[in-house]
Amino acid sequence: MRKIGTQTVVFENKPRIIGNYSVVGPKEGRGPMANYFDYILNHDLYGEKTYEKAEQKIMETAVMGAIEKAGLQPNDIDLFISGDLLNQIISATFTAKDFDTSFIGLFGACSTMTESLSVGSCLVDGGYFSRVLCGTCSHFSTAERQFRYPLELGNQRPPTSQWTVTGAGASLLSLKGDGPYIEMATFGKVCDYGVADVNNMGAAMAPAAMHTLKVHFEDTKRKPDDYDLILTGDLGKLGSEILIDLMEKEGYPLGENYVDCGNLVFDKEQKTFMGGSGCGCSATIFNSYVLQKLKSGEYRSILILSTGALLSTLSSQQGNTIPGIAHAVVVRRDE
Amino acid sequence: MRKIGTQTVVFENKPRIIGNYSVVGPKEGRGPMANYFDYILNHDLYGEKTYEKAEQKIMETAVMGAIEKAGLQPNDIDLFISGDLLNQIISATFTAKDFDTSFIGLFGACSTMTESLSVGSCLVDGGYFSRVLCGTCSHFSTAERQFRYPLELGNQRPPTSQWTVTGAGASLLSLKGDGPYIEMATFGKVCDYGVADVNNMGAAMAPAAMHTLKVHFEDTKRKPDDYDLILTGDLGKLGSEILIDLMEKEGYPLGENYVDCGNLVFDKEQKTFMGGSGCGCSATIFNSYVLQKLKSGEYRSILILSTGALLSTLSSQQGNTIPGIAHAVVVRRDE
Repeated sequence: MRKIGTQTVVFENKPRIIGNYSVVGPKEGRGPMANYFDYILNHDLYGEKTYEKAEQKIMETAVMGAIEKAGLQPNDIDLFISGDLLNQIISATFTAKDFDTSFIGLFGACSTMTESLSVGSCLVDGGYFSRVLCGTCSHFSTAERQFRYPLELGNQRPPTSQWTVTGAGASLLSLKGDGPYIEMATFGKVCDYGVADVNNMGAAMAPAAMHTLKVHFEDTKRKPDDYDLILTGDLGKLGSEILIDLMEKEGYPLGENYVDCGNLVFDKEQKTFMGGSGCGCSATIFNSYVLQKLKSGEYRSILILSTGALLSTLSSQQGNTIPGIAHAVVVRRDE
Repeated sequence: MRKIGTQTVVFENKPRIIGNYSVVGPKEGRGPMANYFDYILNHDLYGEKTYEKAEQKIMETAVMGAIEKAGLQPNDIDLFISGDLLNQIISATFTAKDFDTSFIGLFGACSTMTESLSVGSCLVDGGYFSRVLCGTCSHFSTAERQFRYPLELGNQRPPTSQWTVTGAGASLLSLKGDGPYIEMATFGKVCDYGVADVNNMGAAMAPAAMHTLKVHFEDTKRKPDDYDLILTGDLGKLGSEILIDLMEKEGYPLGENYVDCGNLVFDKEQKTFMGGSGCGCSATIFNSYVLQKLKSGEYRSILILSTGALLSTLSSQQGNTIPGIAHAVVVRRDE
């Protein structure tokens, strides 16, 4: 049996990340993580006529980059697992269109990076596919018009708002090759604490992150201290403070090894208020900073939870609250 | 190794469908399949204020029905895999919200039924989860306003259009229990032959169905005659004729054992033009008619491919064509 506890699975065959790539927009490229990214765009339209087409091109760049870094060709890949924030995940499906491989489309909002790694690790570990590419992307300008208002309206951003990261990240999984490996995954549940404010994603997602973290520690009998680093995806400043409080109450206080990708990607002067968000937030930080530090030996074992707010304009218009979800993966280097 | 050929995986441990349920709207309940469905709504609002909320309730009914038919309780399930046609798959995520189990959100448009069965079978077969619920839904009135025009506009439907099925279907997978089993799955690629007409989904999806079918026969060294029934999801009248032509040219002519769920669900007098479509089309036919005939022994082995058109109003507005995808699963009864 590969399942331990209620929501966690262990990968006995050690699916490894044999290639990874991150690409970000110009604003992210001026942030504190700039030196870790593989590619920084000069302009967030990336030579395209629309932001949506730019988002797709960013995804294609990340996907091709991960394959090249593994020393492989696109036709060496046998499965692509991806999703994004746009209606009917068009950035992912249109990327898959020009890519001659089986495709599984996911939707987990900003939880997509670890959702794809969790599903992908099962499929590689179980011997169903040999080289599985996992990735996701987001774009500030497409997300604003998708979930809130078109930028042209010039709406004032409330102080609890976050800034969707323009960027994409991709990881290539295989049992053969070198790289850090996915040790286990905790598959999250949908949680809803009744937050309905589309400008306060951090508060909407924090309960889901708490739930997945707590279950992870219960399932594995581990403690927060057992990891060199615990990362959440995009709770931002407010959401990560809520998570720290919630975890304290649950009996698993988070220490200094806890950070949120949304707090890492921008600095205060960049006026993003609560920090970064979007699928691209944890995807780019994981596929740059985190994997580099795992490869260099600075970290030996990390736990990352991408966090997703499962809203839609359609659900908001109908008066619904915003449920959240978080999937966690443990990534280790060989001792 | 569990993979054969390029896109097909074989499930050595025989994940079984130990519970299944189908629920449809009143129009589908007046069609030729009426006697096979578990539940037929009196009104397509299902007691809710909006069609979107009705769609979610239909999904909840199917999910609970499948669990009950297996003689289980919701907390016996350890994973729910689902998606739908709405923006950010809100029918699936809001169903998952009230359901205390890990959740994987998929987006595969109308291919979601076999996409969820394919992924779910890997996870059950590999021992990652023990009871996995797979399901999807669609609603005529939500899909029209999502992808085409709000019904209130009274637009005339062109002759190539199809009618989105109001309905949901769910299958519960487990290695323990009785029922037909998933023998193998062929994971589809995204195909695009350049169709851009949002009122001609059948033509957009037929190339993807052809590609998956052809690869399935190549990977497995089987022929169309080896199955008692081959079903596509929702190509409709025109799309299934295109598929028959394409398969003839590829050297795998389809015989009388080939049918399309979109051609089964409505009869000519119901004025649906090219027939049924939507996630709910193959989900309801599979979880009623098909599984009943497998259980009764009339069929021993069937191949079903749900077919998805990967469009969005966003992609159409940007002048994009409509890519398609199809995932195939083989379902057998014990000899």
